[in-house]
Amino acid sequence: MFESAELGHSIGKAVWKREVPQLREELLDAQFDLLQSKKFPVIILVAGVDCAGKGETVNILNEWLDPRHVETHALRDLTDEERERPPMFRYWRVLPPAGKIGIFIGTWYSGPLVENVYGVIKNAELDQRLERIIHFERMLCDEGALVLKFWLHLSKTEQKKRLKLLEKDPKTRWRVTNTDWKNYKLYNTFRQTSERMLRSTSTAEAPWIIVEGTDPRYRYLTIGKALLSSIRQRLGALETPVPHEALPPILPSIDNLLILQTLDLTKKLKKNVYLDQLEYHQGKLNLLTRHEDFKKLSVVVVFEGNDAAGKGGSIRRITQALDARQYRVIPIAAPTEEERVQPYLWRFWRSLPRKGRFAIFDRSWYGRVLVERVEGFCKHADWVRAYGEINEFEEQLVRNHTIVVKFWLSISSEEQLKRFKERENIGFKRFKITDDDWRNRDRWGEYELAVCDMIDHTSTEIAPWTLVEANDKYFARIKVLKTLCERIEAALNG
Amino acid sequence: MFESAELGHSIGKAVWKREVPQLREELLDAQFDLLQSKKFPVIILVAGVDCAGKGETVNILNEWLDPRHVETHALRDLTDEERERPPMFRYWRVLPPAGKIGIFIGTWYSGPLVENVYGVIKNAELDQRLERIIHFERMLCDEGALVLKFWLHLSKTEQKKRLKLLEKDPKTRWRVTNTDWKNYKLYNTFRQTSERMLRSTSTAEAPWIIVEGTDPRYRYLTIGKALLSSIRQRLGALETPVPHEALPPILPSIDNLLILQTLDLTKKLKKNVYLDQLEYHQGKLNLLTRHEDFKKLSVVVVFEGNDAAGKGGSIRRITQALDARQYRVIPIAAPTEEERVQPYLWRFWRSLPRKGRFAIFDRSWYGRVLVERVEGFCKHADWVRAYGEINEFEEQLVRNHTIVVKFWLSISSEEQLKRFKERENIGFKRFKITDDDWRNRDRWGEYELAVCDMIDHTSTEIAPWTLVEANDKYFARIKVLKTLCERIEAALNG
Repeated sequence: MFESAELGHSIGKAVWKREVPQLREELLDAQFDLLQSKKFPVIILVAGVDCAGKGETVNILNEWLDPRHVETHALRDLTDEERERPPMFRYWRVLPPAGKIGIFIGTWYSGPLVENVYGVIKNAELDQRLERIIHFERMLCDEGALVLKFWLHLSKTEQKKRLKLLEKDPKTRWRVTNTDWKNYKLYNTFRQTSERMLRSTSTAEAPWIIVEGTDPRYRYLTIGKALLSSIRQRLGALETPVPHEALPPILPSIDNLLILQTLDLTKKLKKNVYLDQLEYHQGKLNLLTRHEDFKKLSVVVVFEGNDAAGKGGSIRRITQALDARQYRVIPIAAPTEEERVQPYLWRFWRSLPRKGRFAIFDRSWYGRVLVERVEGFCKHADWVRAYGEINEFEEQLVRNHTIVVKFWLSISSEEQLKRFKERENIGFKRFKITDDDWRNRDRWGEYELAVCDMIDHTSTEIAPWTLVEANDKYFARIKVLKTLCERIEAALNG
Repeated sequence: MFESAELGHSIGKAVWKREVPQLREELLDAQFDLLQSKKFPVIILVAGVDCAGKGETVNILNEWLDPRHVETHALRDLTDEERERPPMFRYWRVLPPAGKIGIFIGTWYSGPLVENVYGVIKNAELDQRLERIIHFERMLCDEGALVLKFWLHLSKTEQKKRLKLLEKDPKTRWRVTNTDWKNYKLYNTFRQTSERMLRSTSTAEAPWIIVEGTDPRYRYLTIGKALLSSIRQRLGALETPVPHEALPPILPSIDNLLILQTLDLTKKLKKNVYLDQLEYHQGKLNLLTRHEDFKKLSVVVVFEGNDAAGKGGSIRRITQALDARQYRVIPIAAPTEEERVQPYLWRFWRSLPRKGRFAIFDRSWYGRVLVERVEGFCKHADWVRAYGEINEFEEQLVRNHTIVVKFWLSISSEEQLKRFKERENIGFKRFKITDDDWRNRDRWGEYELAVCDMIDHTSTEIAPWTLVEANDKYFARIKVLKTLCERIEAALNG
């Protein structure tokens, strides 16, 4: 794999002098068009062997490009705000918006690679983590990002030469650390593992570009040209019509037996039983959140449901039991301008809770496979792939000791009509039924199908859906509270 | 001051039962109208004596309001991301947007109060810090926020009773810490200092509301009603026409002797001198950023100037000297949707650099007193007060060991015309002159006046403006680099 990157590639001074000015002009032009188009972000990873010139390369790119629209991220030590969220949080929060360029030096590959080389994780876990990286990058690409991954390679002899050279010069001596020499001694293992890593993560949508790091001119010119042609190609592709979309299949229900229809919506609770149970479960929930180990957890609660199914009321019964300092309710409406230029999951990542806290989502990332699907706000392929992306997202939460509790509040069409009419009769503006609500109601069947598909695809063992029979508000609220308590209790005992 | 809050206010159960349901309905209504209006945020501070029921009060407010549009912030320990920015950063980043309610428990008052009581800061410094708080709150109010400050009071006897009671119950014993008893012993000092603090920070726009904390029903009802009437009043005020704006005076120039006109725009450098100096200063800048103590500083560079004055080129000459990992260039264009519902300085607070980093602003907060003033994008009173707000902002940066370097790049009207014409002739789209540019040019005189006013009002000893004669690009770039080096050098030696 690295053979071509040990051939001794180099570029003469004359070629350099001839080619660079034009390349720089063209890069600036391409960057300007990218910025104007606001169609996609460019994500550049600069990884590779120690001393292969990663920092210098990034500096050159910043010099060649307009630095006002480039952001470079050298992510090293986690901040404590990052430490309390899943590992990918730090990358999500700095993803470049559409139109801009983000350069990452110190990437999501460093951790798995180094940990495997030093024996912290076995090959099996390495493979798993690489698999997740593939999913992440695929998601980025599917969301439109141009992902360019450069691997700067050096032969063992060359690396040693570099280290010695740096050490000799008093001005650069500080750059050579003990770790560098330790890594050097493990060169062969690093090489082997890197090859394995590159091979398995070189995907069609985001292939690795291996660049010999020995000669700076060769390195810069290769990367600069690759960057230019990739941006140009993508900008060009925007102008050609999209071929007929191949529709990924969704298994149709052939017997009309839908999971939602199996719910017994007649379930109900008497008021006095409800009040007793409410007090009991709210007290229990409160106690659970004071448990010593609760500080090590976070809780993400998702509320989805038919319009007027009582999401707001259920949420209030939860927050009543909690200290206001430990929860945040996040109402999800149309995305803001800053959110629209990011992958659709970005807005949820930015709301993830710290340890010991709740984030309660009133509607959620499931909008992608519900309203966006039914109303055609996104392409068919987009919502189909969303199932996998969402599962992946929730898995990351769970791995980070976040309890993910998801409720679908289900009411019958008749009950909804009754509630709509009631609301029209009471004066509170905040309960006003909008035209949108009536329109959604007209699409009851389509939504029902979407909900059932959603449950089929995203009710996982680690983050199951709880279907709540919500024709009776008392019954629904208690089921919600009880489920939440059980899930937290299980986690605390687990 | 606290006399009225020791009278033993209380509300009977009957009154409570009668009044609360209606109050809750009206609060929800008012909150809904606030949300729909999106006109202003509500910022509620809940402060006061230990054990006076701050936490419980905040919980009740969250119960009464729709928790989806309320965010509660209990800010205690600084995170490391906060520690590297000025103290107010943590509050700025969580200010509620217009239409929403933010509740702060543990407010910007706690620090000064406790530190003064424990002798960490003297009265003179306390006064200074309170003065800054007054400025901050005035700015919030001027930007439209409704700021409500509640102080929950307890008499000494009552506080002791509470502490004993909490300690007796095994379920609440954990809430009483040694610090609580230590604070209790200092009750009289706390009382004295609080009174001084409340007195001096009870301003017309954000007065303190002192509430006796003894009886919960009294406490909740008082605060609930105050909140309701304040929101209603403000919403009502939106509908009444604004009275004729009293224009704060700006001293006119009576002799047409403007600071900008004193610049010698013929200053220039020969190319070979420029290249030498460029290398020298870039090298020096690079070295300075590797200085051991540089890690304790941050640098904020502001570029303002006439259109086509060469801001971009000067910025590139700086970034060329830096490692891409340590700077960020922030181009300032029209604010985004999320920025528009916040005070105008909010977008700049969110871009403040960490320690050891540069933030280079291509245009800046000075837009308020330049383009917004000249084009009438904000009210006269808004840009006039901005001078003070900006000085206050920069003072906070400097106190936090941020070097603030501000450049005005000045070219003559003739030079600008020449550059515009040149740009029209070269093909690069990124240099295209827009209609806006021509329009701005037509208002040359107005802009010049605004610039001179800006310099007069905001060129301070701690954050001076450097006026750069920029008709000659070489001269301008070197002056910029040289100034930057000098400022950093002075800070490192200071």
